[in-house]
Amino acid sequence: MTEFNSKIRTIQWIDNCSRMVDQTLVPYEFRYIDITKGREMFDAIRNMIVRGAPAIGIAGAHGVVLYAMELAKENSSREEFIKKLLEKADYLKTSRPTAVNLMWAVEKQKDIIKNSKSDINGIINELKENGIKLENEDIEINKRIGDYGAEVVPKGATILTHCNAGALATVGYGTALGVVRSAFANDPTIQVFADETRPRQQGARITTLELTMDGIPTTLITDGMCSYFMKKGMIDLVVVGADRIAANGDTANKIGTYTVAIAAKYHNIPFYIAAPLSTIDTSIKSGDEIVIEERSREEVTHINGKIICAPEVNVINPGFDVTPNELITGIITEVGILRPNYNETIKKAFENNLP
Amino acid sequence: MTEFNSKIRTIQWIDNCSRMVDQTLVPYEFRYIDITKGREMFDAIRNMIVRGAPAIGIAGAHGVVLYAMELAKENSSREEFIKKLLEKADYLKTSRPTAVNLMWAVEKQKDIIKNSKSDINGIINELKENGIKLENEDIEINKRIGDYGAEVVPKGATILTHCNAGALATVGYGTALGVVRSAFANDPTIQVFADETRPRQQGARITTLELTMDGIPTTLITDGMCSYFMKKGMIDLVVVGADRIAANGDTANKIGTYTVAIAAKYHNIPFYIAAPLSTIDTSIKSGDEIVIEERSREEVTHINGKIICAPEVNVINPGFDVTPNELITGIITEVGILRPNYNETIKKAFENNLP
Repeated sequence: MTEFNSKIRTIQWIDNCSRMVDQTLVPYEFRYIDITKGREMFDAIRNMIVRGAPAIGIAGAHGVVLYAMELAKENSSREEFIKKLLEKADYLKTSRPTAVNLMWAVEKQKDIIKNSKSDINGIINELKENGIKLENEDIEINKRIGDYGAEVVPKGATILTHCNAGALATVGYGTALGVVRSAFANDPTIQVFADETRPRQQGARITTLELTMDGIPTTLITDGMCSYFMKKGMIDLVVVGADRIAANGDTANKIGTYTVAIAAKYHNIPFYIAAPLSTIDTSIKSGDEIVIEERSREEVTHINGKIICAPEVNVINPGFDVTPNELITGIITEVGILRPNYNETIKKAFENNLP
Repeated sequence: MTEFNSKIRTIQWIDNCSRMVDQTLVPYEFRYIDITKGREMFDAIRNMIVRGAPAIGIAGAHGVVLYAMELAKENSSREEFIKKLLEKADYLKTSRPTAVNLMWAVEKQKDIIKNSKSDINGIINELKENGIKLENEDIEINKRIGDYGAEVVPKGATILTHCNAGALATVGYGTALGVVRSAFANDPTIQVFADETRPRQQGARITTLELTMDGIPTTLITDGMCSYFMKKGMIDLVVVGADRIAANGDTANKIGTYTVAIAAKYHNIPFYIAAPLSTIDTSIKSGDEIVIEERSREEVTHINGKIICAPEVNVINPGFDVTPNELITGIITEVGILRPNYNETIKKAFENNLP
């Protein structure tokens, strides 16, 4: 495998602060901002300055460090410091309640706080180191996902993706777009078709930006067009990310994914999920148990602040949908590609590879 | 059947000009403009001030009248007048080359020009009368389509539609939305889900406006959401319009229709086309022969004048797609609902009902 070097580093602990791409400005500007306070991090997560489940997890870990640095200035006792810091950590988790990686990363930091034998400064250093470790692990996991995924990408393939499961959703490489990057490193003739992904247009705004920044040929299409290009034989495979995967392989991802999966099935085109094992929630048996967040009507009725429809119209705006396992060719993880029967292969992946 | 009275009259020959709703302003304004010159009509069709296959047909018929009125002022011989007018008529057909109704309506006017025994003023009067006759026929045909279609709408149904095959695509009642209007007249508990229909958002801009103007409950969704609501059992049937139907029932319609049809098939939801017989082009055997118009990249990359993606990204923007006959439950026409095998039922409909 050739190593692919992406130009994009979404989030990084550097100079005692958390430096991140301000994704509310994308694609109009690609600007880094430094988050220096815990409360700023809470707002950055809530206001989607940082987005994408893995990136939010790292942001949460950094946020705990920032709160720790602030609390250390209060000259409290070690016991008082720990108590207050655990409270702040729990508060941070409420910034985006559905993001499973946020809970996971903050809990990792809480474990350090609870188990450390060090003094306050020592705890802060351990939290910083753990944050950096989680960053590096995220990139490593993405690259392993990318390498496994690249094996199923035919030479010269066109890969369709939906939403953004890219470098800008992670620390810096991507899951679905990690597969693209790894495939492209070995075969510069591959290309990407990116669904716009209404209502929030992450495919148009974010995926086209990060892929063109990395020099990967990318064609933007609207969500309804996928079947047209599939029928024309212009799509070789679909690779998308995941927000949550059930024990049976049913996968919640950005609204519109399920429609693409049905179209892929109809045209006998392979449909892959690319996601770390941490996205698999073995506590839920099937997608039926995944609660779908309903988002604001303005995301559908307005674009760039301007209304696009009759103002009185009703709107329902589910943020995610669930693709049933029967439509999924494989789940590309850091330990390999899981295939049906997912109940068995997911169970096995966890038994062999997780503590 | 209860008669439904729509508030909308899209196009009408009145006071020696063609009065039409300026659909480039919808949904921000509902304003009529008067087209008084042939060249203005050419531009109105090309720039989609008037859109929707049947409405474009009437616009073409009116356009021929306007050209005739201009040419009459040149004091040419009757022979010269006819020669020039036939040229202008052919030119008018190039304003929207894929619109079969435009060709059909202009050819009807050309037949009058060629066969008339009258003088120049007489020819102009015959063309005017024929334009008005085509308007009235369009409304009559739509109402018959509506009545046949209403019979397959279950009580309390939710009807999904894509793009706008409504009053604003026709003279004043609609094909797909004609079915909705006729069904609603008898059962005020029915409702509509309207796909946004990117890139040009006719579903959001036009369908939501005309349905809310007529008091029909309407929910706007993005194109990728259709499967989500189908899976939840919230869609009872799909009804869409058509731009061109081949002899075997394959149907070209607004891009994204094919994706909805595949989703409907996957969920065993009836998928109907509503269109007059004039939309059926028996000269083409299948959808493979339908040439799909590619439109500008700006329709995909910009919304309301603002870019939504990386500026360097590639774009392919097909205006239409073809839904194969195997996905179509029935074609609702003014002579009844045609069912598979379409080669036979379409042939029979033409033998029995057309001159």
